[in-house]
Order: sequence, then C-alpha cells, then structure tokens
Amino acid sequence: MIVGVVGGGQLARMMIPAAIELGVEIRVLAEGEGMSASLAATAVGDYRDASVVLAFAEDVDVITFDHEHVPQEVLRALVDAGVAVHPGPDALRFAQDKRQMRARMAELGVPQPDWAPVDAVGDLERFLADHGGVGVVKTATGGYDGKGVRVVRSAAEASDWLDGAAAGGPRLLVEELVPFSRELAQLIARRPSGEAVVWPLVQTVQEQGICVEVLAPAPHAASIQPVVDDVARAVAEGIGVTGVLAIEMFETTDGRVLINELAMRPHNSGHWTIDGAVTSQFEQHLRAVLDLPLGSTALLAPTSVMVNVIGGPDSGSMTDRYASALAAHPDVKVHSYAKSARPGRKVGHVTAVGDELDEVAYRARAAAAQFDA
Amino acid sequence: MIVGVVGGGQLARMMIPAAIELGVEIRVLAEGEGMSASLAATAVGDYRDASVVLAFAEDVDVITFDHEHVPQEVLRALVDAGVAVHPGPDALRFAQDKRQMRARMAELGVPQPDWAPVDAVGDLERFLADHGGVGVVKTATGGYDGKGVRVVRSAAEASDWLDGAAAGGPRLLVEELVPFSRELAQLIARRPSGEAVVWPLVQTVQEQGICVEVLAPAPHAASIQPVVDDVARAVAEGIGVTGVLAIEMFETTDGRVLINELAMRPHNSGHWTIDGAVTSQFEQHLRAVLDLPLGSTALLAPTSVMVNVIGGPDSGSMTDRYASALAAHPDVKVHSYAKSARPGRKVGHVTAVGDELDEVAYRARAAAAQFDA
Repeated sequence: MIVGVVGGGQLARMMIPAAIELGVEIRVLAEGEGMSASLAATAVGDYRDASVVLAFAEDVDVITFDHEHVPQEVLRALVDAGVAVHPGPDALRFAQDKRQMRARMAELGVPQPDWAPVDAVGDLERFLADHGGVGVVKTATGGYDGKGVRVVRSAAEASDWLDGAAAGGPRLLVEELVPFSRELAQLIARRPSGEAVVWPLVQTVQEQGICVEVLAPAPHAASIQPVVDDVARAVAEGIGVTGVLAIEMFETTDGRVLINELAMRPHNSGHWTIDGAVTSQFEQHLRAVLDLPLGSTALLAPTSVMVNVIGGPDSGSMTDRYASALAAHPDVKVHSYAKSARPGRKVGHVTAVGDELDEVAYRARAAAAQFDA
Repeated sequence: MIVGVVGGGQLARMMIPAAIELGVEIRVLAEGEGMSASLAATAVGDYRDASVVLAFAEDVDVITFDHEHVPQEVLRALVDAGVAVHPGPDALRFAQDKRQMRARMAELGVPQPDWAPVDAVGDLERFLADHGGVGVVKTATGGYDGKGVRVVRSAAEASDWLDGAAAGGPRLLVEELVPFSRELAQLIARRPSGEAVVWPLVQTVQEQGICVEVLAPAPHAASIQPVVDDVARAVAEGIGVTGVLAIEMFETTDGRVLINELAMRPHNSGHWTIDGAVTSQFEQHLRAVLDLPLGSTALLAPTSVMVNVIGGPDSGSMTDRYASALAAHPDVKVHSYAKSARPGRKVGHVTAVGDELDEVAYRARAAAAQFDA
C-alpha cells in the first residue's frame, strides 16, 4: 500500500508517523527542499503542473493532499489517468471555491449564514441593505487563515476586490456577519465505500484569523452534538468527500450552529487527536483514502487541549527552547514541525490531556508559552 | 538536533514517528535496502566497519542504536573521533557480553541467578554438581530470542559449545535453572546527566524463547514495584547506561525477582508504551540520548496489552489482512513493521488499552489472531 501526498507541509509531516505505524508506504511531492514533510519526499515540484503530479502518482495506490490548492485540471488529469484521488475533484471544488460551497450547502439544507454571490457592486449593496448595513465579503478562492475575508459596512470598502474580480481576479461572495458566542469544529472521516465516523465536536479559539487553541470536546456542547453529527454526515455525503473533512462552525448568540468553512484534509482543529483519541485524524485520513475500515474515535482522556506554537519576531527554532519546556512540562506532548519561525507562522503545537478542562488548559497554555520569544 | 541510528530494524523504524513529532531529524544507517526503517535511511553499509560508521556519524549530534551488535572497536573509534555515543561502549559491553554483565550485577549486589564462567568442562561439572545436576549454559555473546541458551543436565550436553569456545568461538557461562512463576520486565530511561525515569513493571509471556505478549502493568505486582524500581535505578546507574534500558527478570516461585537479561535500547517489552503511556519508549530514548528532559511515564489507561504478530509459513504481508482485522477491531492499535513474514519473525504488534485486564487482553489477542495465517 503506497499513499502519495501532494504537498510537504506539516499536515503531510504528521501523516508520516501514522503511515509508519500502519505499515503504509508514504511518498510526498514537496514544493521545495527542506519542507516540513521532507523525510518522505520522493519528488520536488510544482503541484500546478499536471505532468509533475502525474509522474509522482505513477506507482502509488492513492493520491491525497496536504492542502486544497491543486487545480481542478490537474486533479481531473489524475482521474483521467486512472489514479485513485481522495478527496476527488468533485469534492475538493467545495473547499476551493466558497461560492460553490455555499450553493451546495444551500442545496443540502444544512444551516449556514445568509449569503449571496457578488458579481457587481449592486449585489453587495443589496445584501448590505438587507443585513443591517454590514456584511463579510470573501474571495471565493485563495483565502486562508483570515486572508481573503473582510468585514465591510459599505460597498466602497470592497471596491479593490470588486475591481480585481472584474479584472479576472478571485470572484466574491458576501455573508451575514454572524453574531457568534464561539467557534466550533466538527471532524469527520469518510471512506469511498461510504463508512463515516465522527470525533467529538471541539471548540476552536481564533486570534487575528489564526487558530490558537482547541478544546476537545467542546465544553457544554453535549446537547448540540447529535445535531452537529447529523449535519456533518449530511455534508460529507452530500459533497462526496473521502478522507478527513473539518467543518468549521459558528455557535450563534441565539443558539444556532452555522457552517463557516470546510477543509478536506486533516485540520488544525483535529491535532489533539494524535494524543487524545484512539485514532488520530492522520491515521484515519490514511485509512479512509485507502478505503480501509476506520478506527475508533473514542477519547483517551475526558479532555484534551491543543495550543498552537506560533512564531514571533524574535523566535528561533522551536527546538532551541526544548530543555526548559520539556523540563517544565513532562506530561505535555510537544509537536514541532521543523519549520523556522516567522511572525504568525504555526511552527508546532502542544497537547495536554486529563480529567479537568481548567487544569488541562492551564498546562497546555503554559507549555506553549515556554516556546514564545 | 540530528540523531543517527545504527541499524534499520523495527526499533529504528518506531523511533521515526517519535522523532517527527519532536522535530528531531533522524538518520538511519541501514544494513541493506528495503529495511524496516528505510524511510529514514541516509546510508547503507556494514556497522562492523568503522569507516562506514564514522562517515555516517559525521554530521549527527548523537549516535544511538537499533541493536547492540556494533563491535566495541567501532564504538571506541566513534568516541575517539569525538562523536557522542549513547549508550556508550562502557555500558553496551554489558549487553554484548553476558559474563561481563553477570560479573557487574554481582558487584552491584542486585539479585540474579547463581552463575559461573565456564572456561573448561570442569567449571561446568562443578556448577552442575552444586545445583542439583542442572544448569543453563549460555554463550556470552551472540545470543538472542532464545538462541545461545541451552538447559543441560551434563557437561557432555554442552560439549559442542565447549569445543567452539576452545576454538575461539563464543565464551560460555552457566546459570542456575531458576524455578520461576512468570517473567517480568522493567523499562528505565536515563540521560547522560543522570536523570532516570521508570515505567511500570510489566509481565512478558514467552513462547519458544520469543516474546509473544506483554501485560502492562504486570498484574499483582504492586508490592514488588518499589523493589524493582530500586534495582532498575541501581543497574542503570551502575552500568552508566544512557537511553532506554530493559531489564528482563524472573519472578521465582519463592517470591524473588532475579535479573535475566539486559537490553540497551527500546525493547519489545515496551512497545505498549506507544499507545499506553504519555511518553513512549521511542520518544524517551530520543530525549535521553539527546540529553533532553525526560517525559512522563504515566499510563493513558489502567491496562495495556501488547501481542506480537509473528510470521508463519503461510503468512503473506501483514497488510494483506488489514481489511478484516481493522474492521473487527477498530479500537486496537495495529503496528506493522513492513517486513515480509517468515516463520517466527516478528512482523508487527497490536496493542489494546482499557480498564479491565481480561477484556483488554481478549481484544489484543483476538486482533493479533486476525493476522495469523
């Protein structure tokens, strides 16, 4: 069994331990030398070049991904060449294009914010007028970690993006500004043959558009878990995703849960599963894309808290601070992505597990703080 | 931080996931192509050739091992060249030579079977006469998995080995045949700077000299755990070991615990720690040989049971049977070493964790049985 992963970032990196334990051969097509997942890199090249990706895919049993940026034409070329691609292009387009995603969620009847495609300034003006004069304009493609998202109170505030779209740049959509009390994420894995499993709903904490912390399970969420389970299964089946799907959601101040974003790969909101669940999202992703039976998503402890280690201006390598961090926190699991630090760049994460949320969160935050500059 | 591992077997393989999570670069000197740890192999060559090992060691921060077979002269050449070697030659000789080991254990005053060096037939005859006419003859070097061990009731039964020793083959020793009720193993990790941590004592089950199953913690062992802890710390310090040390022991029918063997590397008796402890033996070994603070050895569940998957004459690859095995046991962790099966060869293991020993052992054994031919 050989899995080929397009992209050499930390998600591909964290698939390697799972592949080793399962006895699955893993190969990575990296964007360059010295990537996070370079240990398994068998090729370096441009994932936008179909010939590069086709050559990489030659001897693998399945192609999967570290990210959702492989163009549709490259994905279709793989499928046309008879390569198993999971998730496939028909699913991935919903992660690549937020307009397609919103339209599909509407068809599926799952809860999401009000939204509208924006092809001209009038579309945006109308939406703002209908929604209290405020909206969230997004580029349909290319956004991540808070980029490509802008809260506007007039169409003029999006004029550069409207001009860009008119000039052939990313198309736009607008969504209602949801009054939310917190953000949640639901992770689900689905096999080509249809079997799907969910982990518990988690709470994610964002700062400046970047996930900083995940509480698993989400506190005080037992009553909405069944609802969210049903939504997750409907979405996974409705878009035909294979592998891991992360559904980011808002919990609104009036008690609804609305879908914010989809990610079709292992996701930051699931890193806690490496240390806190019987089957990690990385192992599950491999099992799913190989169409192997899925593993248990049971918890190893009542609570897990994951805190990202995010580079600052004065950070060196994460491992420069190992001696003091490991000494202070022998019971916290430290994960380093072997990346040089840049401000705002995720260079690793830590996970603590235990019985009491407050105590576990304290330990995880304290350990992550050891790595701050 | 770069760790170089001499030897490409499954122990090196299982260090790779731990290295990836820690952000430690790992390089393997493999014996050949297609070894279990080939993913991290940066060199292929003969570990008995000092020039090969010295070249491999050039840019690493520390050299450690998949096995204890690297000759003393090669180890000394590394040390002389200024390479950090953990465990070092002064410790490893006690894993390489059972006569040196027994003599050192005697000096340390730790409990072990009666024994004597055997340099001539008279030595063996005397020992047998003093021990009810029976003894266990061992070659001082080269034995593993039950090889190099023979129960004899007369010196004549060891005449081939005596002839071999006289002709320059492995030297011999004899030990009393210990009447034991079960076998135990104590795992300890020690840093160069002296810090040492122990995991709980485990029970190991052998068949035909090969470990087949490990129960962690050892049932009904709470009363002897403190004694064994003290013994383990005395041994680790007394031989100056760095990294993981496994101490295999007999529990005698009259309630004593006697040291049987030492292994200075991650050990089959500690594979359960991957899934059952906060810090696995593989992560701990890397932390120890890098002289980083050691991790918690706390349990993730009250009980873990590990069962080896051992090749039979009709076995194919372990992964041939994945679909049925994973489907039947979604909550058991399956570890494949990516080795082709041969009768008696360990090709993988499974670990179950949970609350009740009987239930956990049942699940682990049933899952391992899925892989039998």
